[in-house]
Amino acid sequence: MKYPLLAVVAALLALPAKAQETAPAPSPGEIIDAAPPGDWIAISASDLLVMDLAPDGKGKGRRVLIQLMPAPFSQGWIGNIRKLAAAHWWDDASVNRVQDNYVAQWGDATEKKPLPDGLATVPERDYIARRMFAADARGIALPASGRDSYAEMTTFHEGWPIAVESDFTGASDAWPIHCYGAVGVGRDMSPDTGTGAELYAVIGHAPRHLDRNIAVVGRVIAGIEHLSSLPRGTGALGFYEDAADRVPILSIRIAGDLPDADQPKFEFLSTGSESFARYAQARANRRDPFFVTPAGGADVCNVPVPIRPVAAR
Amino acid sequence: MKYPLLAVVAALLALPAKAQETAPAPSPGEIIDAAPPGDWIAISASDLLVMDLAPDGKGKGRRVLIQLMPAPFSQGWIGNIRKLAAAHWWDDASVNRVQDNYVAQWGDATEKKPLPDGLATVPERDYIARRMFAADARGIALPASGRDSYAEMTTFHEGWPIAVESDFTGASDAWPIHCYGAVGVGRDMSPDTGTGAELYAVIGHAPRHLDRNIAVVGRVIAGIEHLSSLPRGTGALGFYEDAADRVPILSIRIAGDLPDADQPKFEFLSTGSESFARYAQARANRRDPFFVTPAGGADVCNVPVPIRPVAAR
Repeated sequence: MKYPLLAVVAALLALPAKAQETAPAPSPGEIIDAAPPGDWIAISASDLLVMDLAPDGKGKGRRVLIQLMPAPFSQGWIGNIRKLAAAHWWDDASVNRVQDNYVAQWGDATEKKPLPDGLATVPERDYIARRMFAADARGIALPASGRDSYAEMTTFHEGWPIAVESDFTGASDAWPIHCYGAVGVGRDMSPDTGTGAELYAVIGHAPRHLDRNIAVVGRVIAGIEHLSSLPRGTGALGFYEDAADRVPILSIRIAGDLPDADQPKFEFLSTGSESFARYAQARANRRDPFFVTPAGGADVCNVPVPIRPVAAR
Repeated sequence: MKYPLLAVVAALLALPAKAQETAPAPSPGEIIDAAPPGDWIAISASDLLVMDLAPDGKGKGRRVLIQLMPAPFSQGWIGNIRKLAAAHWWDDASVNRVQDNYVAQWGDATEKKPLPDGLATVPERDYIARRMFAADARGIALPASGRDSYAEMTTFHEGWPIAVESDFTGASDAWPIHCYGAVGVGRDMSPDTGTGAELYAVIGHAPRHLDRNIAVVGRVIAGIEHLSSLPRGTGALGFYEDAADRVPILSIRIAGDLPDADQPKFEFLSTGSESFARYAQARANRRDPFFVTPAGGADVCNVPVPIRPVAAR
């Protein structure tokens, strides 16, 4: 767990001569670093939410960036979220719930603030994208993807982890996955599906039992630590019992609505690229020097899609 | 994500008459609450580590309880940990590393403090318990346990999640699993396996690729929030760059070495009990009213073994 450089060097020197001739296999991080620029896809400013929390105890800003999902997933709720951001609806909202190994959740703690006009009521059937893939066009499968506990298979679609299950026609249903950092739409009891005004981010082990039961609308791509390191709420379900513990939200905006110079620029590694396939293989079979026994597989949430700021050129 | 009582009532009233006649299936929590006292097993004070961190910014105590694994797993490292606790070795140690969605790690930040005499050097082969089960005596399998991404199967042994793989003789190798809250032994590069002086707890999605690569020695059963909500380190691998950010450890003791009245008393739900089997099924197929689509399976880390304080009688 310490990986000091000197120890790496020492370990290499300690190897018998034959093994020294073979360079150690590249780590997942080395594969990402070596990916050609053309394998990276810019995240559009119109698909990026910028959430600014009140500064922390030391006066330091806390910015959380959330990438919204592409079609065909969850677009009804995402349309609502765009309207809520445009209306500056969250500007006096707060993070109200932090439950350990589960979620941090934000919205209107009073549950009384009127919503903007024109929000859609989205049906439960939209938790799943129907007949999304023909059986022969499912994209890149994960190594050992047949051994997922929750779905027939898992794969990646345009940079997002998804679960896929064949229907009787040979086409496939697909749905987005609750991995660490996933952002979903809080709701009350079924058949309510929530508007998008109440959102949460996953801050623990992937709660995959929520898949197809709550809408996943995006993922935190930067600043998750401003949510995951918040004090846990001591009330039921991790709600803060004392209103003073809530973390005020200064604003949530679509990045495209900010002045050009203020727009965060990020890119993700194309999940259709050869680099990503090599990265996924390396995650499933770590052969860099720290490891003794390669796992021989990886669950989809242990293959996080690489995302990074776009370097100034 | 809100589950208010009124909404539950409203949802029930809204159902057609026929559905109202059937009570909703019990939730995992309800199954735990209904488990008879005989299904609970007390955790021995000799298998419980009590870690007291320095009080938080508001002067509040921070106690973390760690249950140590039973034989045949990791006993060499656990023997070392018992010696380190008996020697009060950690009393001026600290939490030095907090990496988001990964681990919080503690030990001697100087890496210079002499270790007590008599610690064992444990070999890598002890990451795995060999020929632990005959093929026909593997214990209770998880629903859909055949679909684990990392092992032939996963199950529970005396209250602990383990992975199992047949060897060529028909017997089975088994190893403990890095779920959320698992405690492991930090080490440098292989073939070093660490002494147990440097420990970490998992505070994110189960890093199962560490299974069979690092020794798992226990799990946090209370107070994980005192580790998981710490500020993330900004140095490489989440190490704190400023020594002032480290969280001092006041002491780590085996509970049995504390005065009787100070010994925390906890119990876990027997993983061989009928209650546990029902609980695991309910985790894999949530049918309580909030859920729309039961998952049909669960990964082993999404079936946390229920653990609770022993109620005063």
